[in-house]
Amino acid sequence: LQTKLPKVGTTIFAVMSQLASEHGAVNLGQGFPDFAPPSRLLDAVERALRSGHNQYAPMTGIPALRQAIAAKTERVYGHRPDADAEITVTSGATEAIFDAVHAVVRAGDEVVVLDPAYDCYDPAIELAGGRAVHVPLDPRTFAPDWERVRQAIGPRTRMLMINSPHNPSGAMLTAADMATLAALLRDTDIVLLSDEVYEHIVFDGARHESVLRYPELRERAYVVSSFGKTYHCTGWKIGYCVAPPALSAEFRKVHQYNVFCTFNPAQHAFAEMIEAEPEHYEQLGAFYEEKRDRFREQLLQTRLEPLPVPGGYFQLVDYSAVSDLDDNAFCRWLTIEHGVCAIPLSPFYDAPPPGQRLARLCFAKNPETLDAAISRLQKL
Amino acid sequence: LQTKLPKVGTTIFAVMSQLASEHGAVNLGQGFPDFAPPSRLLDAVERALRSGHNQYAPMTGIPALRQAIAAKTERVYGHRPDADAEITVTSGATEAIFDAVHAVVRAGDEVVVLDPAYDCYDPAIELAGGRAVHVPLDPRTFAPDWERVRQAIGPRTRMLMINSPHNPSGAMLTAADMATLAALLRDTDIVLLSDEVYEHIVFDGARHESVLRYPELRERAYVVSSFGKTYHCTGWKIGYCVAPPALSAEFRKVHQYNVFCTFNPAQHAFAEMIEAEPEHYEQLGAFYEEKRDRFREQLLQTRLEPLPVPGGYFQLVDYSAVSDLDDNAFCRWLTIEHGVCAIPLSPFYDAPPPGQRLARLCFAKNPETLDAAISRLQKL
Ligand SMILES: CSCCC(=O)C(=O)O
Ligand SMILES: CSCCC(=O)C(=O)O
Repeated sequence: LQTKLPKVGTTIFAVMSQLASEHGAVNLGQGFPDFAPPSRLLDAVERALRSGHNQYAPMTGIPALRQAIAAKTERVYGHRPDADAEITVTSGATEAIFDAVHAVVRAGDEVVVLDPAYDCYDPAIELAGGRAVHVPLDPRTFAPDWERVRQAIGPRTRMLMINSPHNPSGAMLTAADMATLAALLRDTDIVLLSDEVYEHIVFDGARHESVLRYPELRERAYVVSSFGKTYHCTGWKIGYCVAPPALSAEFRKVHQYNVFCTFNPAQHAFAEMIEAEPEHYEQLGAFYEEKRDRFREQLLQTRLEPLPVPGGYFQLVDYSAVSDLDDNAFCRWLTIEHGVCAIPLSPFYDAPPPGQRLARLCFAKNPETLDAAISRLQKL
Repeated sequence: LQTKLPKVGTTIFAVMSQLASEHGAVNLGQGFPDFAPPSRLLDAVERALRSGHNQYAPMTGIPALRQAIAAKTERVYGHRPDADAEITVTSGATEAIFDAVHAVVRAGDEVVVLDPAYDCYDPAIELAGGRAVHVPLDPRTFAPDWERVRQAIGPRTRMLMINSPHNPSGAMLTAADMATLAALLRDTDIVLLSDEVYEHIVFDGARHESVLRYPELRERAYVVSSFGKTYHCTGWKIGYCVAPPALSAEFRKVHQYNVFCTFNPAQHAFAEMIEAEPEHYEQLGAFYEEKRDRFREQLLQTRLEPLPVPGGYFQLVDYSAVSDLDDNAFCRWLTIEHGVCAIPLSPFYDAPPPGQRLARLCFAKNPETLDAAISRLQKL
């Protein structure tokens, strides 16, 4: 049996979580909160479980949830997608990305990916028969160089992927980026895939530049989000995709025969939660900003140098002052010898920048968890 | 935008459920129970929700669930798969089928499909760049003609799909079928995909001939099952795939980047349920056999002719005595004019047998639901 995905091993997140648990390390690796989802949400799931919502949901998601997503999108981004034709509920953002790629990418097509990038992009492209063309972001600010993106685009380019707030760096695209991007794609038929799973986790008064704000961009885009990130329930695997009717129709053909639908009781719960507690997502930035600020202050007491974090729930640190190891070796060593699990950056790259000494720490954790990590990191 | 799946429309199950609800028809179309999952299972999901199991599960499924599946498989089929290397928990059987196909089928490969077949097989094959080669089952008994299967196999054949108990007919493969199949595949490198989602719903003292009973078959097979069918929770979308380590490794590469993992709280609940109440799946055949028998007896008071139902929860009926319409038109007419929703058989075929007058009724329903349907069908 010859593998179809020769470059794929077990994802770095599973590898490091495994290592963390073997060595009793504080796990700031894999991105998930160590606190519970809102209690209203849990109550609502229980009510749905007890009131007969245990059979197939509609393939596109229950209408109440799609309507709640449409209304929320309008409140936040000033644009109301059509709940029937433009919104599809998925088994997490990962399934949405996989489906979007499979909906439009054909054998021989190229997809432009900005590195570092989340690790599910490349295998999805490869399985669809496409080829990822990697364009590096700035190695320090993680801003895109649109001129290099333009050079990467050719006659076979079918899709361009963006991700803001960005995993692993937290970097955010600006309104100027969106204008440049719109100009770049104008007069092409390139489909945009915008991974916006950290859309509500933005700091310092910045505004999330969702593709959904920009008519010229959204008319060619799959915009993907995740309830897991917004509602502290990464293990529920419910996300969604917003796209114009023609793109959604193709997306749904894949979704329909990939998973068909997703956990029904939670769909009812999210529909209720989004409408009943808009303050949850409105205050999510402030909630995480406090964690970010506290964690960064503590990091100043260590020899790790924290990079700026405009959004998301990851803190990049430069460990040059501590170690000469490459990032994979450093993160293993940090986990095993110092009891703090971090994620190396090179798995996010097709070609990691030589000499880059960065590791990713997740601060979506209770203060005690972060305190325990810091007291270990102070010994570095 | 040119579609990648020109033959795919909205699945017949969604189309008919929609029509049923528009016309207030009793919905015996789409296959789902109208009764609740076992209360122990609901209790266990609630406990998992409240005890911190809301973040990512391991990509392969939680260990307790994989071990419970391994132990159950040994109890029922006399073979214990390795919980670590051979079992993967998926977002329903549909995702498992999609992943298995994408794990091994490459551009230009052929996959043998026995018609009628569940409607997700073909699009999965097509998206993987493969070509489905259709071999008809007997139009009345739905038994395979292995000689025709042999003729359909060629140098490009990469996979063969089987499904027992069979959807839509309920037909079951026999021990003799399994022996013939083993001989047929011997000395080939064809991968077997065995869809066994109705494994516990078998009648009249028959034994389900799982591929997992047969060493020569299981060493080349993906065996797929579904908790949705066994535990009356089709809307939870949790299933699993058993396959030897090398096949599982390839399967997991796809699963990992398709959905990554599945709803964590329910995994804990199934782990508990399988171990604590083995009588649930042991008695599932008897539970549905009573429904089948009662429903068939009632059907004798109508002009629909029920075909034998060895397993599963669908009743095929021949409606020749009632109508000359083709099956699509008949099922629409039955839904709209007579208030009973049924599923036509032709969508399960690449080339429907001309003149076939069969419709599928789901009897996974409360007695009142079936009674209501029967009293309407008596007016035919
Ligand atoms: C699916 S495990 C990875 C979770 C995540 O989003 C991350 O750690 O970047
Ligand atoms: C995913 S909807 C179809 C459900 C089913 O298994 C059937 O009706 O055959």
